[in-house]
Amino acid sequence: MSAKAFVTRRMTFSAGHRLHNDALSAEENRLLYGKCSNPNGHGHNFTVEVTVAGDIDPRTGMVFNLRDLKKVMTEVVEDGLDHKNLNLDVPAFKGVIPTAENIAVVLWGLLAGRLPPGALHEVRLVETENNFVSYRGG
Amino acid sequence: MSAKAFVTRRMTFSAGHRLHNDALSAEENRLLYGKCSNPNGHGHNFTVEVTVAGDIDPRTGMVFNLRDLKKVMTEVVEDGLDHKNLNLDVPAFKGVIPTAENIAVVLWGLLAGRLPPGALHEVRLVETENNFVSYRGG
Amino acid sequence: MSAKAFVTRRMTFSAGHRLHNDALSAEENRLLYGKCSNPNGHGHNFTVEVTVAGDIDPRTGMVFNLRDLKKVMTEVVEDGLDHKNLNLDVPAFKGVIPTAENIAVVLWGLLAGRLPPGALHEVRLVETENNFVSYRGG
Amino acid sequence: MSAKAFVTRRMTFSAGHRLHNDALSAEENRLLYGKCSNPNGHGHNFTVEVTVAGDIDPRTGMVFNLRDLKKVMTEVVEDGLDHKNLNLDVPAFKGVIPTAENIAVVLWGLLAGRLPPGALHEVRLVETENNFVSYRGG
Amino acid sequence: MSAKAFVTRRMTFSAGHRLHNDALSAEENRLLYGKCSNPNGHGHNFTVEVTVAGDIDPRTGMVFNLRDLKKVMTEVVEDGLDHKNLNLDVPAFKGVIPTAENIAVVLWGLLAGRLPPGALHEVRLVETENNFVSYRGG
Amino acid sequence: MSAKAFVTRRMTFSAGHRLHNDALSAEENRLLYGKCSNPNGHGHNFTVEVTVAGDIDPRTGMVFNLRDLKKVMTEVVEDGLDHKNLNLDVPAFKGVIPTAENIAVVLWGLLAGRLPPGALHEVRLVETENNFVSYRGG
Repeated sequence: MSAKAFVTRRMTFSAGHRLHNDALSAEENRLLYGKCSNPNGHGHNFTVEVTVAGDIDPRTGMVFNLRDLKKVMTEVVEDGLDHKNLNLDVPAFKGVIPTAENIAVVLWGLLAGRLPPGALHEVRLVETENNFVSYRGG
Repeated sequence: MSAKAFVTRRMTFSAGHRLHNDALSAEENRLLYGKCSNPNGHGHNFTVEVTVAGDIDPRTGMVFNLRDLKKVMTEVVEDGLDHKNLNLDVPAFKGVIPTAENIAVVLWGLLAGRLPPGALHEVRLVETENNFVSYRGG
Repeated sequence: MSAKAFVTRRMTFSAGHRLHNDALSAEENRLLYGKCSNPNGHGHNFTVEVTVAGDIDPRTGMVFNLRDLKKVMTEVVEDGLDHKNLNLDVPAFKGVIPTAENIAVVLWGLLAGRLPPGALHEVRLVETENNFVSYRGG
Repeated sequence: MSAKAFVTRRMTFSAGHRLHNDALSAEENRLLYGKCSNPNGHGHNFTVEVTVAGDIDPRTGMVFNLRDLKKVMTEVVEDGLDHKNLNLDVPAFKGVIPTAENIAVVLWGLLAGRLPPGALHEVRLVETENNFVSYRGG
Repeated sequence: MSAKAFVTRRMTFSAGHRLHNDALSAEENRLLYGKCSNPNGHGHNFTVEVTVAGDIDPRTGMVFNLRDLKKVMTEVVEDGLDHKNLNLDVPAFKGVIPTAENIAVVLWGLLAGRLPPGALHEVRLVETENNFVSYRGG
Repeated sequence: MSAKAFVTRRMTFSAGHRLHNDALSAEENRLLYGKCSNPNGHGHNFTVEVTVAGDIDPRTGMVFNLRDLKKVMTEVVEDGLDHKNLNLDVPAFKGVIPTAENIAVVLWGLLAGRLPPGALHEVRLVETENNFVSYRGG
């Protein structure tokens, strides 16, 4: 029997960001992003949920060892983003407006390269208790 | 690169309801709905999660502006349902038994007409911490 | 060694209510309670947290057997209030406006009589994720 | 109109388990499962979310009566697993390593046989606030 | 009967901050605040819980009208702090290091002046799901 | 100005335990602890909230450096209890029935000795989403 399951690991990080498109006027930015374009930025406790999909290995009873997933996520999420300013401190956001959508896409890119091909199924980003985004690559 | 993402906004409302089908006998209603058919009704803090799907606009970094989604949801959920009795006060439930399933379907109908065609992906309704329903239209 | 500890058990109930004082005018009620005075009522998933305080019994390692506390709370909370309309179906609210504060006081009265004298320490009532009340008797 | 909806009921259980494969060496078990292979076991408050999918019955407004789903889940989850040691007390785990993945698969098997054919859509198992698994059968 | 109760309202805000004392050396700041002293700041979804204590008014069944408390909190918390950089955008933090402790103290000061004398009982600030602070004035 | 504040850090651990008093008969144990006395044990995701009280240091804006509190809790909670069987693997529970009350008392003892005298204010232990205990020493 091969059984396909989805395994998710959750991690949080606290970061600052500012939503602003330099190619637009101040007024356009204000209309588009409202108080999210505050020049000095603001921040969130972001939650990331990374889902890996695959068959359960009968020898281990696992799709993917959660310790390994934790190690990858610690490197990408905790070391890479936690207690940083996404716009100013994180190279992966150079030229990318750090909306929740784009954070999910950037995380997908950083995680996919560190996981077995095809393993990554979904990146879910919770920005506040009222806003979430998910991205499945493509 | 076009990247498809799913964006969700959560909103709560507190409402009363009663589960009762007038076409059935009192005994049938009792068997079917149990204490949910209490004549004087009861109520819940409902949570609605509305998910919109689409490509991320490279200019804005967004699938859909959450402020616009919040405006639509405020109109439909907060103004339309909050602190009301679903059976007696809300026209959309005339002739509709306000089960969690039907609330999700009614919300879908009210929201779809206020959003761009094809944008609405899912309405999820949390009735209690132990009961949830989701509806994807169709 | 006698060690004093506080033991809490949580239980939820879903009920309807209406905030309205018959001794006041319609306008006064509207000003005071806003949409909470909607004539057909609304409702909530209420959470009750009952805290009992006392010394830990060295023989059992317990302040109070949680099974006994659960039994008392099931009788008072689940059997007495769940899926009811507090204004119309619950004798203890005759003449009492079922605000969160008064629900906590009424619960205190119902619980204290079923627990050992002095054991009840606090009744906490969560009305929504944004509103809570606590009452310590007196 | 036939409307397909997804209905989920959540239930918790507290159980002990140990991750260990008797076919592997002590060292292999340690490398694979780390502190999860502690000989005397550990435990969790597991949360199970069972999702049933189907058309909403226009007569009842329901996909599936939640009371019936609760009855099935009480039998399988509460009576079958709660306050037990999964490795030693639960026949369904004879020869099965009780990883989160396998617990979801075992629950699927136990639930599917007690529900109408095709009704069961997903079993989601939350092991800790940071680890979840979902299984959709197959 | 006069009955004293505690009424709490919860509100969230998302803000940026940086922990840094200009009177200390860079090395002392790093030792003291670690990654919280990152020059470009970071941020959080802060949760504020404001508790008011008093006797329940028999005419209204309330200690304090939650709509009035919400109005005060919207002014202080949402208008004053949300989507801002606490160090750079908020006058009340001039010369104050915005640690969780100090945010609670500053909020106490801003709220106490807008509430009846003696009404304010506690300000609780949740910085992350793992860190909270409470302050009772004095 | 000296301002007294309460600072709390939360940490989780997953452990197995069994409630059983060897000095009592099997029947007495069954009556007292019910399914919690299952011979092979069960387990929980416990949450510990440790509260430290003191004046805010004007130089740091802190009552107590949360990094130091985290270090102490990691040693006591994560290294000492996580993924263990409290009855069989943890010396501090020799001769102590690991009820929630006693776990809080044991944690108090282990933590107080590693914190400045008088700093520890409360240990709160959440055993399940419905059961919590708090202990303030004495």
